[in-house]
Amino acid sequence: MNSEQLVEQIKRKQSFLCIGLDTETAKLPDHLRDAEYPLFEFNKQIIDATHHLVIAYKPNTAFYECMGIPGWKQFELTIAHIRKNYPEILIIADAKRGDIGNTSKKYAEAFFKHLDCDAVTVAPYMGSDSVLPFLEYPDKWVIILALTSNKGANDFQFLGKGNQARLFESVLRTSSKWGNPDNTMYVIGATRASMLIKVREIVPDHFLLIPGVGAQGGDLTEVAQYGMNNRCGLIVNSSRAIIYADSTKHFAEAAREKALEVQVQMRKLLEWLTKLG
Amino acid sequence: MNSEQLVEQIKRKQSFLCIGLDTETAKLPDHLRDAEYPLFEFNKQIIDATHHLVIAYKPNTAFYECMGIPGWKQFELTIAHIRKNYPEILIIADAKRGDIGNTSKKYAEAFFKHLDCDAVTVAPYMGSDSVLPFLEYPDKWVIILALTSNKGANDFQFLGKGNQARLFESVLRTSSKWGNPDNTMYVIGATRASMLIKVREIVPDHFLLIPGVGAQGGDLTEVAQYGMNNRCGLIVNSSRAIIYADSTKHFAEAAREKALEVQVQMRKLLEWLTKLG
Repeated sequence: MNSEQLVEQIKRKQSFLCIGLDTETAKLPDHLRDAEYPLFEFNKQIIDATHHLVIAYKPNTAFYECMGIPGWKQFELTIAHIRKNYPEILIIADAKRGDIGNTSKKYAEAFFKHLDCDAVTVAPYMGSDSVLPFLEYPDKWVIILALTSNKGANDFQFLGKGNQARLFESVLRTSSKWGNPDNTMYVIGATRASMLIKVREIVPDHFLLIPGVGAQGGDLTEVAQYGMNNRCGLIVNSSRAIIYADSTKHFAEAAREKALEVQVQMRKLLEWLTKLG
Repeated sequence: MNSEQLVEQIKRKQSFLCIGLDTETAKLPDHLRDAEYPLFEFNKQIIDATHHLVIAYKPNTAFYECMGIPGWKQFELTIAHIRKNYPEILIIADAKRGDIGNTSKKYAEAFFKHLDCDAVTVAPYMGSDSVLPFLEYPDKWVIILALTSNKGANDFQFLGKGNQARLFESVLRTSSKWGNPDNTMYVIGATRASMLIKVREIVPDHFLLIPGVGAQGGDLTEVAQYGMNNRCGLIVNSSRAIIYADSTKHFAEAAREKALEVQVQMRKLLEWLTKLG
């Protein structure tokens, strides 16, 4: 998917919502546990109920990998279901991979060639050759971790004193030269909305993948205020607040309702953007 | 495997060699390509020919993941073969994973519970909660990327000016407090042997996993000189120079010969350690 198609989808659906498919056996509704592919059955129903409200799905590989081959099978089935039925939707493999050049090349093959995802999250620690192989695929995206939303983000991402850039700023500045705003995005944790000002100084045109926004509107308005650019430039992810909104047979409708709540807020924020433009 | 068992194995085999199983279909000897599980068949023969010369095997997940489920099947078969036949050998999943706490927990399950590996490599960018879940398993190891051997290592790992620690030094200093020398190791690229002096100032007691040492002895002596501690403290990896030493039916014997060359050098270096001690 190229950036024009992504922006077109945002305008048509009046949404910049991504649903994180962090699907765990222990959290499934009881009636699904005996299915042949319970994680996939859950994902399928979530997807079929919410596809008109979202522009992206983001399955996190860890939740499938922990089951071994049956997990990978369900990861593949999930990708294939979206690809076949909702080809306009961006599929993000949240894999946080990254290795030396010849090895990252294999990860790019895994997610772009074998699985046909549109985007993959990548850790920047190993530098350019760990990221460049993902940029060789046209109409695919690399999403580099810059500022994450977890507690451990404070351990290294803010290192840098005085007039020296902090690590996440160096990551943005250096890695934005490897690709361009049409093949590179950044993970920026929403728990640090005020940081978005600094981020937008360095990467004004890139899309940002924002995890950590709850179903409530507070953060979302702040994220839009500091993070939007003239093509929206935001993909806001919500996982647990949507997919586990209800643990009964009605989980998919409950997920749709939660997603709709967020989309209604997003529509308003996009109207505000249109007025500004 | 605990550290006593690891040190005992090093003494018994007079080796601190790890073979990296970065196995690629395109590089297999012709006669193996039609096998049901060609990567596994290759790995099995390499392992059976070299197990007495090595203390660890390190399959890199990327080379299996790029094939999807058939790749993961062969990854699992490889682990199971080592576990069953050579239970004394350390199995390192070179996966370079890392995510927020609840997600890293799933990766730890994947490699320690589902697959029964002994160690997994982890990227430090996301900080403490991305690493801590791996430390909850007794007799398992986390191997944190500190200083890698690739060109991209220069992009971020050396950031830090004046009296401020460089990033890789901060990673060593901070993360060494999360665990201890009996459950944490570090990746230190052998292309920077002189850096080992600095590394040993910060983590004198930890094991270091050293990639990037060729079949030649030059680097190895330097690595031992600067990196050894009183329980050896080194695991030196070689991948392509050993497993692709020959591309005919005799690949496994050729791999054994290459591994033996390295082990002979290691025996001398360990004698030197014994004399010192």
